[in-house]
Amino acid sequence: MKRWLFSSIALLAALSGFCQKEDSAYIRKISDEIMERSQAYENLRQLTKEVGARLAGSPGMVKAEKWGLQAMERSGAERAWMQECLVPHWVRGGQDEAIATFDDTRSAKIRTTKKTLDVLALGNSLGSPSKGITAPVIVVGSFDELEKRKDEVKDKIVFYNYKFINTNINTFLSYRDAGQYRGQGPSRAAKYGAKAVIVRSMSHSADNFPHTGATRYDTAYAKIPALAIGLRDADWLNEQIKSGPVTVAMKTFGRFLPDTIGHNIIGELKGSEFPNEIITVGGHLDSWDVCEGAHDDGAGVVQTIEILRALKAIGYRPRHTIRFVLFANEENGGAGGTKYAEEAMANNEQHIFAIESDAGGFTPRGLGLTGTEEQFKKFTSWRELIAPYGATEFNRGGGGSDIKPLNRAFKTPTGSLNPDSQRYFDIHHARNDIFENVNKRELELGAVNMAALIYLVDKYGL
Amino acid sequence: MKRWLFSSIALLAALSGFCQKEDSAYIRKISDEIMERSQAYENLRQLTKEVGARLAGSPGMVKAEKWGLQAMERSGAERAWMQECLVPHWVRGGQDEAIATFDDTRSAKIRTTKKTLDVLALGNSLGSPSKGITAPVIVVGSFDELEKRKDEVKDKIVFYNYKFINTNINTFLSYRDAGQYRGQGPSRAAKYGAKAVIVRSMSHSADNFPHTGATRYDTAYAKIPALAIGLRDADWLNEQIKSGPVTVAMKTFGRFLPDTIGHNIIGELKGSEFPNEIITVGGHLDSWDVCEGAHDDGAGVVQTIEILRALKAIGYRPRHTIRFVLFANEENGGAGGTKYAEEAMANNEQHIFAIESDAGGFTPRGLGLTGTEEQFKKFTSWRELIAPYGATEFNRGGGGSDIKPLNRAFKTPTGSLNPDSQRYFDIHHARNDIFENVNKRELELGAVNMAALIYLVDKYGL
Repeated sequence: MKRWLFSSIALLAALSGFCQKEDSAYIRKISDEIMERSQAYENLRQLTKEVGARLAGSPGMVKAEKWGLQAMERSGAERAWMQECLVPHWVRGGQDEAIATFDDTRSAKIRTTKKTLDVLALGNSLGSPSKGITAPVIVVGSFDELEKRKDEVKDKIVFYNYKFINTNINTFLSYRDAGQYRGQGPSRAAKYGAKAVIVRSMSHSADNFPHTGATRYDTAYAKIPALAIGLRDADWLNEQIKSGPVTVAMKTFGRFLPDTIGHNIIGELKGSEFPNEIITVGGHLDSWDVCEGAHDDGAGVVQTIEILRALKAIGYRPRHTIRFVLFANEENGGAGGTKYAEEAMANNEQHIFAIESDAGGFTPRGLGLTGTEEQFKKFTSWRELIAPYGATEFNRGGGGSDIKPLNRAFKTPTGSLNPDSQRYFDIHHARNDIFENVNKRELELGAVNMAALIYLVDKYGL
Repeated sequence: MKRWLFSSIALLAALSGFCQKEDSAYIRKISDEIMERSQAYENLRQLTKEVGARLAGSPGMVKAEKWGLQAMERSGAERAWMQECLVPHWVRGGQDEAIATFDDTRSAKIRTTKKTLDVLALGNSLGSPSKGITAPVIVVGSFDELEKRKDEVKDKIVFYNYKFINTNINTFLSYRDAGQYRGQGPSRAAKYGAKAVIVRSMSHSADNFPHTGATRYDTAYAKIPALAIGLRDADWLNEQIKSGPVTVAMKTFGRFLPDTIGHNIIGELKGSEFPNEIITVGGHLDSWDVCEGAHDDGAGVVQTIEILRALKAIGYRPRHTIRFVLFANEENGGAGGTKYAEEAMANNEQHIFAIESDAGGFTPRGLGLTGTEEQFKKFTSWRELIAPYGATEFNRGGGGSDIKPLNRAFKTPTGSLNPDSQRYFDIHHARNDIFENVNKRELELGAVNMAALIYLVDKYGL
């Protein structure tokens, strides 16, 4: 008995060693295909330079959908289609403006001086009256300070100068922390009678680009205009107010047009053994209107397409069905992700795993997983196989807002690619999120690491 | 006895837990100081924009040395000095030129056509005769091909089109591999009578900047002129030769002036317990003449100075003496590193550890160590303390050419900061190695990770 047990263990160990070797070789093959013959960078150039900005409802969205479908087809999807969904249609509506007026007291003779600020209306925010808003600015460093000074807020423009925390090594922690000012800032100021808000951009970059992003009005209060301001201008404004009152004249033009039709773009490789069990990999196709959306989320889009291309190119036959999805409307509504899960439920689909790349096209550092204890254990057992390609950190917690609905609907374990986060908030939702700021190899490595994980999940389940 | 042993173990475990916590808190303190108040980025701006290129022997070198000494003093060095050494003095001597002439056969009427190539003479290479060299080009993909075709080489310009290997994830492996063509290429071609060589740049970047770097002539053969060529031009030249002969007219002007005086710049914090035991941290002050040397090695220079500033700012009193060294002449001679070790030997100094940052100012991924098995074990036991700051990979093999002489002289264990390598060879030794291509936070994190290791070595020895 003992001898039998021993032999079995030895056999299992040998088999496992064999599999490990085989897997290692196959992942190398995927990596070589991507690092040698990737189309990701060229696809990104097309998406950013030929399609450009592509906010939900915009003509850019329609162009991007067409491009995405063609890219799926030319990359070897056995089937590619557009999944219709209703998307919000917010438009900026004009050139956002903010001009500060103040007394320049630096010389003996005090002079009333004007300074144009670099600003962008927050996404989903509503425009000012057509003649604009002109009001004195009150600066607060935090919501606590707002509460303390709530009696001073009425008829003013509230300037939230809350700073991104520099000491967090993972910059997403600072983003989540500061993000509440963009999300709740307008309504919390409106509650006390503010006429508008200016929000310090969610960034610790050294330049002056304003960073937009969605705000959420609380319907209990007036929907006042809201601007993001570049960091240098924010520092200037904060300093200027210390030496005397500053009035800002601002104009914004945001409004909602009727909801319109958008699409998730889906490519598929049918599973040879478990065609009804689905693995999803995706990124979101939409971007903010003021940039090329190269890192956010052009990178996730072209990595998704690249994984399809590479698996097809090396003749991989998946056991499970793999879906490559470019989600609609992540930035200001989430209609694409919601629709994908709804339709999956309606069709009684089985979703065994989903992974999203929506944290920039930077060098991969890790992978994250939301799942059961057992799933997480299996996931981390693959670390040694994937680590040589950059993703060395296997963390709890993965997914993204487009695949969260799958997790809610099916308890599908959801993963995410976690690239290095140091540069993301230099460009996030800002004019400088452009093709030139994406590195070819870093982008490709993101695809390699996700493809490796998909290969392992497809082979062993999760 | 057993109970005593048990209690002792429990006590040790508790103490070690306490130390772990204390160390963790202290490293956090160092990190916060650097991430909040770093001068590294501003120092890098000064070094790249106000000093600029600073090859050994150049006026830029003298300016850089002066700047470095002042930076050491203003960053809190208890003592700062210049250590004299004799450095080679190679000058480019003019604007390198290469013009290709070929028959354009794309239209019905064949036209002789000229194309200017983007080239840079290799460092330490000697110039062409003043009227230049005009000769037909033979392209070889490798030394193997050169050997096979050695009879065709005489009086030609040999173009080494050896490609950087894209599939290596660690790009330094590809650099070491391709680097032999820059180092040995000229002499191996001269052996068969070539008039000059053109070397494909050591890069896999998507642009066309030529990448220079030192070559080494074998004195047995003629010292023929040698150029690096940008990748797009290399691809073009390779393709053009397939459709017909190409002649290149080239001019280079490189020459050596008499050796001259350069300096290592050294700052010091005296050890409170072991003043005679020295820990060295450094980068090299020199750069190639054609760029700002921002990543190579401005980053290492300002990180070194930043560690000094931060330790001083938080009131750290080192047990051992810590030396902050900006080495002279790493790029084309290594005189600074050699001198530092020689003087250490002459003064009978004890060097317990040295670490160098000379792989770019990119996001840190790991630390490397060359040392005994025991030293490596101790080093890796600190992984959990440092990993939260980015250096998660603790590898065997560390150091850099400036601190190697210390290891040879004293068996000093040598370490290196290993930043992410994906972008390094986009800019290495090329015109685009400029300040704008360094990210502030990535640069600062490099200093944090090295400072943490220095703190631990200072506290526990190695």
